[in-house]
Amino acid sequence: MAKIIIGVMGPGDGATETEVKYATELGKRIAGEHWVLLTGGRNLGVMEAASKGAQESDGLTVGVLPTEDRRQMSNYVDIPICTGMGSARNNLNVLSSDVIVACGSGAGTASEVMLSLKAGKPLVLLHPSKSLLAFIEELPQSKPAIANSPKQALIHIKELL
Amino acid sequence: MAKIIIGVMGPGDGATETEVKYATELGKRIAGEHWVLLTGGRNLGVMEAASKGAQESDGLTVGVLPTEDRRQMSNYVDIPICTGMGSARNNLNVLSSDVIVACGSGAGTASEVMLSLKAGKPLVLLHPSKSLLAFIEELPQSKPAIANSPKQALIHIKELL
Amino acid sequence: MAKIIIGVMGPGDGATETEVKYATELGKRIAGEHWVLLTGGRNLGVMEAASKGAQESDGLTVGVLPTEDRRQMSNYVDIPICTGMGSARNNLNVLSSDVIVACGSGAGTASEVMLSLKAGKPLVLLHPSKSLLAFIEELPQSKPAIANSPKQALIHIKELL
Amino acid sequence: MAKIIIGVMGPGDGATETEVKYATELGKRIAGEHWVLLTGGRNLGVMEAASKGAQESDGLTVGVLPTEDRRQMSNYVDIPICTGMGSARNNLNVLSSDVIVACGSGAGTASEVMLSLKAGKPLVLLHPSKSLLAFIEELPQSKPAIANSPKQALIHIKELL
Repeated sequence: MAKIIIGVMGPGDGATETEVKYATELGKRIAGEHWVLLTGGRNLGVMEAASKGAQESDGLTVGVLPTEDRRQMSNYVDIPICTGMGSARNNLNVLSSDVIVACGSGAGTASEVMLSLKAGKPLVLLHPSKSLLAFIEELPQSKPAIANSPKQALIHIKELL
Repeated sequence: MAKIIIGVMGPGDGATETEVKYATELGKRIAGEHWVLLTGGRNLGVMEAASKGAQESDGLTVGVLPTEDRRQMSNYVDIPICTGMGSARNNLNVLSSDVIVACGSGAGTASEVMLSLKAGKPLVLLHPSKSLLAFIEELPQSKPAIANSPKQALIHIKELL
Repeated sequence: MAKIIIGVMGPGDGATETEVKYATELGKRIAGEHWVLLTGGRNLGVMEAASKGAQESDGLTVGVLPTEDRRQMSNYVDIPICTGMGSARNNLNVLSSDVIVACGSGAGTASEVMLSLKAGKPLVLLHPSKSLLAFIEELPQSKPAIANSPKQALIHIKELL
Repeated sequence: MAKIIIGVMGPGDGATETEVKYATELGKRIAGEHWVLLTGGRNLGVMEAASKGAQESDGLTVGVLPTEDRRQMSNYVDIPICTGMGSARNNLNVLSSDVIVACGSGAGTASEVMLSLKAGKPLVLLHPSKSLLAFIEELPQSKPAIANSPKQALIHIKELL
């Protein structure tokens, strides 16, 4: 049986302090449940923080990299998947996750939120901006779960699994 | 020298009547400028309408299909690119277009808007929803041009080329 | 109705003089039939030569580039598709062509030959090496057509369309 | 630090008894070294056998699937990566592996051998056909290691890491 994979998506460069803090805690909690963490794999922002949180709690971390090699990989990734396909890999992150948690609202992350909705994948938005929520509200797809803390995100993940 | 390629992105299934009307006119106007029209290639909604508009005005139409073959292709596509990679092909639409016009605000289209912003590609939003605009306003990327009609979209395209 | 697309696959850097000559003539003949030429789009070897041959005979040329932008594109490509996915784009070349002609036997080209066989696509080998033929002979898939000249390749393409 | 990932590539449907036996043993030996096994992830042939061998020896197995979901996945895959991109995912298998072992010579496997050579990745051919070897001999790329048994393959992998 395959392991449960939880994708945590969020900005690299532009991550805020809160997003980094939340991502770290999310990583820890995901590891605590013995789930596998999947991120975009880079050594920046939410990807780095979630991977660090998970690995330091003895979790297993997968990084689906945009690059052909491991040069910009987070040191906290156990299993790098080198796609060499840039942002087209965002769709692989979505398809490979049992549940996706979006932590932050950059353009790349928002593309993953949209691809998740499009694919009908279980989705949790952690502390989303009001404007992202308002936009999603207008879409015909079924609505994502909203969490205000990593702890609450975990509760939603469990409901969605 | 490569031809100028204008990508028109928009919903398949959920396209509104206005979006279909706008897409048809956009296709016509793009053909009128002797530009190549690029869409997601399917036989539905904005993709179909823009391709029809362009082809009926003697334009050339490219369709970057999510599928491995031409079964769900619009009959108005001249050059189908069969990617066999589902929604990951959205990023190819963005990278291959000199300017991207988003006509409608479905989840798939919004993913292409986000990927365009992420890639720093010239982008025009045709009659966008207020909530999409409000969300984009918060992003750090440079802002897309806004058009209220296909005619105005053409003016923006010319400025952006 | 979509146009007929003929893919010509062959080496970039390592193309021989004969391969370049054949590719140029193939491009011309494909254009002469009013088919669209599809190549890997780069400014080198078989890709460049076939595109040049076709464009100079008033043909239409598509280049499915491995890169995110047009920087290494052949000047003889009319319609560049920027995939940004490196060699993974080889599969798109195969899927998008009505018939594939392999002109030369480099590693990249051989990968496209194998993907064509795997996908069951009509395939012509132009002047293949004996060792490539011997290897293909052992595969369970149905055998490609063999041509000893661009003229003969055209005859096979017509049979396969 | 990322784990060491060894890719084992081989046929699904057409795998021979010997290939299946070798793949099982390869999987065991890879697990025995505490390396991660990466395969194409399907429930058939070499992919299934290697994954079974590795998992039964307490190894960790990654499956990079051609499909959008887990329906045709081997039960012995721990971490499925759902690419939804068909055979284009072959390039991801190659790029993500520290060393690639080709076990068998089908068209799909041969495409991965060619992509490995093209990308300059360390490559071991386990019991290759004479005709595949003869073809590779003519290519300009540096030559892969040849192994006549899974045991010998392991020796080559260690040299290549």
